[in-house]
Amino acid sequence: MKPSNHEFFMQQAIRLAFEGMRNGEGGPFGAVIVKNGEIIGQGNNRVATTLDPTAHAEIVAIREACRRLGHFQLDGCILYTSCEPCPMCLGAIYWARPRRFFFACTRADAAAIDFDDNFIYEEIDLPLEERKIPAIPLLREEGLKAFEEWRGMPNKFVY
Amino acid sequence: MKPSNHEFFMQQAIRLAFEGMRNGEGGPFGAVIVKNGEIIGQGNNRVATTLDPTAHAEIVAIREACRRLGHFQLDGCILYTSCEPCPMCLGAIYWARPRRFFFACTRADAAAIDFDDNFIYEEIDLPLEERKIPAIPLLREEGLKAFEEWRGMPNKFVY
Repeated sequence: MKPSNHEFFMQQAIRLAFEGMRNGEGGPFGAVIVKNGEIIGQGNNRVATTLDPTAHAEIVAIREACRRLGHFQLDGCILYTSCEPCPMCLGAIYWARPRRFFFACTRADAAAIDFDDNFIYEEIDLPLEERKIPAIPLLREEGLKAFEEWRGMPNKFVY
Repeated sequence: MKPSNHEFFMQQAIRLAFEGMRNGEGGPFGAVIVKNGEIIGQGNNRVATTLDPTAHAEIVAIREACRRLGHFQLDGCILYTSCEPCPMCLGAIYWARPRRFFFACTRADAAAIDFDDNFIYEEIDLPLEERKIPAIPLLREEGLKAFEEWRGMPNKFVY
């Protein structure tokens, strides 16, 4: 793929960011997912209209592409996002496993317009007891029983 | 709230983990969200049946609770999850902002039954160019134009 194609697809992601923002759907973020030179999923931030805090551009695009492919993994795909993914979206990218991704704005750029991406990256690195949203261990032994049953299950769906 | 109530709600999350796993819906993970002593959202891992890589228990529960509340934030809520959240779900928790959360199994326990949670935590801390899924900057100046327009928008939806 020539560099100009990467720029074309990134421009589509940025166009979606503009459109979604101007339509009042959410923040200025867009993403497209490409396989074999074709867009198979796209999205923009839709938190404002769906009231779903997980409706970030990358998540919307990943869900659409996986529906289209009928598969929970984006084998051989490339994701283009108008901004470096927040930890939620980066995690989603790792679960979906595209080959690589391109991003335009950085997490610092997002922080400069008051989005929490950078703050969440900082929180992830803190010990549980120092985080702003406390994370408290409880009933690990009971929880482990489900993991033990999973370990012994034949023909389980591995992802 | 008495400790016994926390244990009751965690047991519901663990029950959902067992049910979803036994029904073939996905891995052994469950979550519930509680507000004022009442469960307002719940979920189990549904990656296998929905083919949606983002359908983790916490994400399913957060989306349901936000639909129920008609709000993108979980003010005053507590989340109970049968396993320490992966980075995707931890990010979603930060965007949804419950007051705190409880977890049973740890990320190390999840790694021991071959889930990638811990691997993704490690990847997040690596420089972009050292990660398994390469992250490549492209067209930042064009992307920033959307951010500049957002900055100047009156009456925008801030989240």
